Order: sequence, then structure tokens, then C-alpha cells
Amino acid sequence: MSKRVSEEAKSHDHHAKDYTDPPPAPLIDFAELKLWSFYRALIAEFIATLLFLYVTVATLTSQPAPCDGGVGALGIAWAFGGMIFVLVYCTAGISGGHINPAVTFGLLLARKVSLTRAAAYVVAQCSGAICGVGLVKALMKHSYNSVGGGANAVSAGYDKGTALGAEIMGTFVLVYTVFSATDPKRNARDSHVPVLAPLPIGFAVFVVHLATIPITGTGINPARSFGAAVIYNNARVWDDHWIFWVGPFVGAMGAAAYHQCVLRAVAMKALGSFQSNPSN
Amino acid sequence: MSKRVSEEAKSHDHHAKDYTDPPPAPLIDFAELKLWSFYRALIAEFIATLLFLYVTVATLTSQPAPCDGGVGALGIAWAFGGMIFVLVYCTAGISGGHINPAVTFGLLLARKVSLTRAAAYVVAQCSGAICGVGLVKALMKHSYNSVGGGANAVSAGYDKGTALGAEIMGTFVLVYTVFSATDPKRNARDSHVPVLAPLPIGFAVFVVHLATIPITGTGINPARSFGAAVIYNNARVWDDHWIFWVGPFVGAMGAAAYHQCVLRAVAMKALGSFQSNPSN
Amino acid sequence: MSKRVSEEAKSHDHHAKDYTDPPPAPLIDFAELKLWSFYRALIAEFIATLLFLYVTVATLTSQPAPCDGGVGALGIAWAFGGMIFVLVYCTAGISGGHINPAVTFGLLLARKVSLTRAAAYVVAQCSGAICGVGLVKALMKHSYNSVGGGANAVSAGYDKGTALGAEIMGTFVLVYTVFSATDPKRNARDSHVPVLAPLPIGFAVFVVHLATIPITGTGINPARSFGAAVIYNNARVWDDHWIFWVGPFVGAMGAAAYHQCVLRAVAMKALGSFQSNPSN
Amino acid sequence: MSKRVSEEAKSHDHHAKDYTDPPPAPLIDFAELKLWSFYRALIAEFIATLLFLYVTVATLTSQPAPCDGGVGALGIAWAFGGMIFVLVYCTAGISGGHINPAVTFGLLLARKVSLTRAAAYVVAQCSGAICGVGLVKALMKHSYNSVGGGANAVSAGYDKGTALGAEIMGTFVLVYTVFSATDPKRNARDSHVPVLAPLPIGFAVFVVHLATIPITGTGINPARSFGAAVIYNNARVWDDHWIFWVGPFVGAMGAAAYHQCVLRAVAMKALGSFQSNPSN
Repeated sequence: MSKRVSEEAKSHDHHAKDYTDPPPAPLIDFAELKLWSFYRALIAEFIATLLFLYVTVATLTSQPAPCDGGVGALGIAWAFGGMIFVLVYCTAGISGGHINPAVTFGLLLARKVSLTRAAAYVVAQCSGAICGVGLVKALMKHSYNSVGGGANAVSAGYDKGTALGAEIMGTFVLVYTVFSATDPKRNARDSHVPVLAPLPIGFAVFVVHLATIPITGTGINPARSFGAAVIYNNARVWDDHWIFWVGPFVGAMGAAAYHQCVLRAVAMKALGSFQSNPSN
Repeated sequence: MSKRVSEEAKSHDHHAKDYTDPPPAPLIDFAELKLWSFYRALIAEFIATLLFLYVTVATLTSQPAPCDGGVGALGIAWAFGGMIFVLVYCTAGISGGHINPAVTFGLLLARKVSLTRAAAYVVAQCSGAICGVGLVKALMKHSYNSVGGGANAVSAGYDKGTALGAEIMGTFVLVYTVFSATDPKRNARDSHVPVLAPLPIGFAVFVVHLATIPITGTGINPARSFGAAVIYNNARVWDDHWIFWVGPFVGAMGAAAYHQCVLRAVAMKALGSFQSNPSN
Repeated sequence: MSKRVSEEAKSHDHHAKDYTDPPPAPLIDFAELKLWSFYRALIAEFIATLLFLYVTVATLTSQPAPCDGGVGALGIAWAFGGMIFVLVYCTAGISGGHINPAVTFGLLLARKVSLTRAAAYVVAQCSGAICGVGLVKALMKHSYNSVGGGANAVSAGYDKGTALGAEIMGTFVLVYTVFSATDPKRNARDSHVPVLAPLPIGFAVFVVHLATIPITGTGINPARSFGAAVIYNNARVWDDHWIFWVGPFVGAMGAAAYHQCVLRAVAMKALGSFQSNPSN
Repeated sequence: MSKRVSEEAKSHDHHAKDYTDPPPAPLIDFAELKLWSFYRALIAEFIATLLFLYVTVATLTSQPAPCDGGVGALGIAWAFGGMIFVLVYCTAGISGGHINPAVTFGLLLARKVSLTRAAAYVVAQCSGAICGVGLVKALMKHSYNSVGGGANAVSAGYDKGTALGAEIMGTFVLVYTVFSATDPKRNARDSHVPVLAPLPIGFAVFVVHLATIPITGTGINPARSFGAAVIYNNARVWDDHWIFWVGPFVGAMGAAAYHQCVLRAVAMKALGSFQSNPSN
């Protein structure tokens, strides 16, 4: 047992030279409300979510049937995944590149953003999503309604439990990828890995869409589902709407717990270094 | 308020060590007209735009219907996005890799290229585009006319306002990505981000094509639209042609304004550092 | 001959400064059984294989026919390749990112993991695969059975020899790519190459699926085949099941032999440096 | 004029610190025939071309019609481009990752490989291609013949001139990308560019296939065309076969001339530095 502890501690000490875990974000941080960079981040989240919804819902709206040359479910999955790749790339340095309340919620649970920032981000994301879908409706009125406005709802042949499970699993995959890509430990340990973090995040969105477009249209992003629901404003869409908040938030919670408690093993490591190095 | 200013200033000072904003390009720069590297850049833009139009219009021209094995709208979107990725990669170090008058116009507004260079680039791009489409027509006469020569025009079922809006939004996404990818600030701040700048630029072109191929064929590049119109030379194409210059230029202007005034916040930062550090 | 030897030796000496080959992993390593990082790696392999099977079998299960908007064989190939890219990216730093008993077997033969670790990984991978497919069955009962449960079997029109050959070749491509991407020699020699190792590994899985989905559904991963077979539990699937263990293990053995004996040429190099530098 | 010269010279001097152009390869280099690394490179080219033809021709051979779930021309283009990405990634450090006589020919013209090495590579590539296609025929006899054996030939509706032009242009795009990706100048000047050189090379192959699969099946690689022709061994295929050697070699020659004479401007630079710095 002592061997285990000392090896853990040695590995802990060794790593301690390579990277620094930033301190947990405060829950309420009024100081950041006074910074221009905070409002710039909100604007960036608003614009990015607007562009995300504009391009993806326009792709859903403008396509003829696949055999008449439309891009099909594969093209729609690429639109979602490709836009997330591009927008995370563009906004990572400004706002962290969340573009998704479930990602913001996961990072809040891991104490990587403050509660004030998280709440402001979610408002910015939802407003941006509404504007993005509104823009598609304004530009392409005729086809917009025929495709159901790009809103998420449970498809015929599936029940609500399936839809909820699909949203939980899909968001778990996405938020787990986000945690892996932004882990400060990676920069030091695996020099080949963090080079293009936005790409695996975009691919995670892409593959989850491949799997679940036929079930719910794929949410895994409450702002995307909310924006589309507000503009389409149909009773059945609102009936199912809770699934696209509860599912992603549960999935994000699971991914945050898995990453922080298992992969980073914060508690156990702290114990290990305490036992072998009481002065720590 | 003073806290905000000093924090801004500290962040400004800290960044000042990490990167250098190049000075604004002069409006008229006769000196560069005497450099071989200037003419080499023009040749590179000419050849890159030629290859871009050759590959993309050949893809449009040579395909049978999707259900007979053609690549469909998804394959066409990949041809545009994939070629931009490859060509930006190849020409970034020679000419900056614009291959698009809207990109050149956006960088001119941000004072990253001189007016003389911008004008020469646009001429090179348009000439290259004409030659590229001409090559497709010469090689594949029969199918060339049946697909409308790859020219951009407003599709049946959409009006000119929709087409203009789609061009503005699409070019905004592209030029915003270009600004994000080439921001000198990124190199210092987010070491993981600028590694493969051409890839997100190519993906931006890809996803915008997914969204708007059914509306106009997707321009977001006046040289591409101009080259195809000159060779196809059809009255309806010329009627709509202004959309594919006005739309992209307005979109590029919006992206330049958003990046320079909001994200980089040039004016406000200058003010902040002035207030806290009068000797600056 | 002496010239050849001295050049080889010089190149050997020069390389010796750039990188270090880690010592071969011990066959039986009881010490690692006492480390938390060992069990964390097992959990990571279990969860990653679970997510891999969940997303890929859900993609297979939920799709309508391609002409009704399903993603088709191309989308299915992307689901497999895209998930491997994402999951290798996420777990590379925790467990090495195997997610595949054939990869573990190849690395065992090359003495890069111990036998104890390899055996534990295979158990974790197979358990994860069973849980992942079970989750798809639980969520999408109706469509699950109609698509054959995502299980690998020899398609009508092909015989078992073809299927075995296709599995051997496909796994060779995958494991050869894994060896190339993780070779410590690359980090020093080709600074541009190892930057995003998970991407070529994901693409290798993608292209092999393009080639052999019509023949067997493509295994090249015994845990994927085993998990799908356990949950589908159909006589014909079990009849063919040996192909999806023997084929991948033979392919992995071939790739390990090719990389270690030809490309790294361990034995010959050792000889060369012995002859020219007897004190080594 | 003197200003131009001095600026060129300054830029030349500045660059001279950042990178070193390797000396031109000798035309005949008997010394390398005595090195194990030379034969290892030949084996790597042989195996890589074998795997390339196996995966791509298997993709062509095994697919049902797109509307019955086959991958279509888009999937076939991905198989070619994806395999080149993976194989260039795997063999770049061993043999330079040519896998294509046209690439070898282009690099020979630019004096980056010796004539002896180029000739040996072409033999290894053609032998590997024959074995790869032979393996597909052995495994999938029935469907192999029905798809024309994956051989390149001029499609109905196109003439030989069109096919030759398409091969020249397609190979120009590919070899131009290879030159750009391997230019030693890039490593110093554009730190963001050469990081993942195999990716743009793979994308170049992908987009050229999108454009010209309907015309000739797309060669742009004489070893690929030769291997498929030898195994299929049909009169019409041999009639057109010269196109798939002449076209790629002319295209590679054009790309080599463009890169060396225009982009690198070897001669003019040497003149510039001579005039301003006679002691050079």
C-alpha cells in the first residue's frame, strides 16, 4: 500500500512541474461584471449561437429530398458538426467557445466558470439561437414550415424515454470530449493531443447527429432546441421540450462527474499526496 | 471603474509581450510594386483561383444524378470546401491565400493589405476564375451547358432578397473565420488554435455550401460567380449577378467590423491603456 | 560494407540524441496492479468502448433507407471512424486509447504493454461493448432486431475465406497506422507528423469500413463484434464469430511484425551498431 | 531598382537564418544502394501502394448501387483521399510517402530524389499496386469483373483529349500540394502550416476524384492505373492506358516547374543576392 501511495505521489509531484490546474472559479464573481472582456465574451456567444442556428436550420430548411440532390441526414450531421468545429475554433480564445448551455453547465459543475458567467452565457446563447432561427424563417418562409422549423421533437415510432436516453448519451459524448480537449493536464502530458481541440469537439457533434437524427432530430444543445421551438411555436414541440433541457443537463452532469471524479480523480489524488507528504 | 481600467491595462500590457500587431498597411504602397514577391503573390492568386474554379465547376459539370452515382449536393459542398482548404494551405505563405475578392476586401477594410495590393489581387482572382471555368467548358462541352455552367443565380422558389441575405450571412461566416484564423493575438494566447488555420476556413466554406446550394448555388466569392458568369454568359445569370458582389462585400464588411470593433476592440483598448498609463 | 555500417551507425547515433525507445514492457507486471492509474485506464477503456458501440450501433439501428434520408453506408463508415477519432483523442492520455482488443494484442506483441494489462484491457473492452449494444437495444427495441443488431456476419454472396481475408487486411491497415502514429522515433524525426495522431487512426477505421461494410459489416475490432453478438445472440452470428477474432488478431500480428522487424528493423540496427561500436 | 534588390537580399538573408534548402539530390547515387534505409523505403512504398489499391479497389468492387446503400462516388472519392492521408502519414518518415510515380517524377525533376531512387520507387509502387488489385480479385472474384476491375478508362460521352486534360489538371493539383507541403521554407516561415502535411495531400486527392470520377474513374497515379490494368487485362483498358502515364507525368512536370521557377524563384533570387552581395 505504501508503494502505491509513494508512486502516486511521485507521479503527482512530477506532474506538478508540468502543468497548473487553475483555481476553481468562484461561484459568484462580481468583479468580472466590470470587465469589457466579460461583455465581449457574451457578444461572441450570442453571435456564434446565432450563426450556428442560421447555418444548420438553413441546411435543414433549404434541402430537396436526398434523391433530388439534397444533402440528406449525412449532410445535416456535417452542418451541425462542421459549424461547431468552425465556431469553437473562432470563439475559443474570446469566450471559451461554449455555444451550448449544456457545455456551460458542465463547466460550471467542474468549477471552471462562475455561476454569474454561466447564467449570462445561457441567456446570450438562447437569444442568439432565437435570432438565428428567426433569420432563417424571415429568409425562407415557404420551406421553413414544411420541414417543421428545424425543431426537436420525438419522432413517430420512438417514445419519450428513448428520446431522453438518446439526449443524455449524446450530450455525455459531447461534454466528455470538451473536458478531454480542455484539460490543462493534457498540454503538458500529451504534446500531440491538444493541438486542434475544436476538431474532435466538432466530430463528436457530427457522430452524435448520425446516431440520433432519426429519433429526435438531435438536440444535445438546449439553446438550439429552445431557439427552434420559440420561432416554430407549435404545441407538440413545446410538449416534448423539457426532454431537450433535462437530457443534455443530465448528460453534462454525468460527463463532468466522470471526468472530475474518475479520470482526474481529484479527491483520491489529494489524499495520496496528503498521506505521503503531510506538509503539503 | 479604475479597477476595470487597470485590469484591462494589465491584460493589455501582459499581451503586449506575447504578440505584436503589425502596423496598418498603407492605403497606397508603391514600394511593393517593385518587389518580385508582389508579382509572385499575384501569380499564386491567379493559379489558385483557376484551380479552384476548375475543380469545383468540373465537379458540378461531370456528375450524373445522385441516384445514378453522382456525388450530390454534399459532394459539391465538399469540392468547394476541400479545395479552399488545400489552396489556402498551399498559398498562405505566398500571397496570404485569399482566393476570394470578399476576403481581400475584408482584409483591406481591416488595413491588413494595401489598396494597390487588394485591387491587383481582385484582378488576378477574376482572371483566374475565368480561365478555370473556360478550361472546364473546353474539356467538357456537352455536359457544361446542361448544368447551367456552374453559374450562380437565384433558384426558382426564392426571391432576390433571400439570395442577397444568404450571400451576406454566408460571407460573414467565412470572413469571420478568416479573421479569427489569422489574428496575430491567437498565436500567443491559444497555442492550440492556429495550428491548422486553413482547415476551419475550408470547413466554413463547406458548411455554408450545405446551407445555401439550393438557394443560389452559393457564391460567397465574387470571383467564382464572375468567372462562371463570363463563360456561361446568359442573360438571367447577368441579371442576378450584382447579388454575388454586393452580398459578399456587405458580409465581409460586417465580419471586419465585428472582428475589429467588438472582438479586438481596438478603440476601447487604446482608451483603457491611455487612461491608466498616460505616458503610453 | 564498412561504409554501410558506419553510415548506419552514424544515423543510429544521431537519432539516439533525439528520442528514447522506452524499455520493453515486462510480460507480467504485478506492480501496476497496485496503481490507481491502472484501474482508471480500465474504466476509461470500458467507457470508451461502451460509447463507441452505443453511437455506432445506434447509427446502424436508427436509419431509414438511404433514399428516405438515411445516412447510408457512407454515414455508417463515418460513425465508426469519427467515434474512434474522438475516443482515441479523449483516452490517449489515460489508457493509450486502444478501444480494440486487436490494437491491444498488437501492442502486446511489440512489448508496449504487459500481458496483465493487455488481458485486463480486453475484458474491459468486451464488457463495455456488451453494455453499449445493450443500451441501444434497450432504447430502440423495435428497429434493433430489424437491422440484425449491428452484428458482424458474412454477407450473402461472400464466403468465409473472403470475410477472413477482409478482416486480416483491414486490421493490418488499422494497426499499422496505430504503430506509425505512436512510434517514439516520429516525435523527433518528423516534427510535423505526430501532431494529431488520433485523426489518421480514425481515418484508417473510416476507409476500411468503406471497403468492407458490404462483405461483413466490418469488424476489425473483436470487442465490437463480440458485444454485438452477445446482445443479438443469433445462431448464424455465433457460427461466423471466430472470423472476427482470428482475422483481427492475425492482421494485428502482421502489422506488428512489419513495423518492428522491417520499419524499425530492431535486430539489424542493433547488429550494425554492435559491429561499428563494440563497446555499446 | 537598387531598392528592390536590397529588399530582396535582406529578405533572402533573413530567411537564410530560418531554414536550409537541402542540396540538390545527385542524379545517380550509388552510395544509397548500400544503405538498409534505401531498401526499407522500397518495402514501405511497396506495402503502402498495395494497401492503397486493396482498400480503394475493394471499395469500388464491393458496393451495391447507391440507392441500395452503396457509398456512391462520394464514398469512393473518400476512400482514395482518406487512404492517401493515412498512408502518407504512415510512410512520410520512412520513404517520403510518395505512393505515386507522378509524385516521385515531380520530386525527381526538382532534384529532391536521385534518379536511382526514383526508378526503384516506381518499380516498387507498380509491383505493390499489382499485388493490391490481385488481392481484391482473389477475395471478391464475382463482383470484381462486374465493376470493370477498378481500371481507369475513358467513360462513354468523353473523348481522349478530355481525359488527358483531366489527368494533367488533377495531377497538377496533387503535386502542387505535395510541393507546398514539403517545402523546407514553410517550416520556418509559417509555423502554422506544415503541421499536418498529409491532410491537405489527402484532401487534394479527394477533391480531384470528386471532379473526375465520372470522366475516367480518376487516375492521377500511374501505379494505381497500371496495377488495375494488369489484373483486369482488358483490351480497351490497355488502349487508353497511355493517358494515365502521360497525363500524370505532364501534370507533375507543370507543378514542379510552377513551384521551383515561380514560387521559389530559384534563379531570380540567386541573381538578386549576387548583385547586392558579390562575396556570396
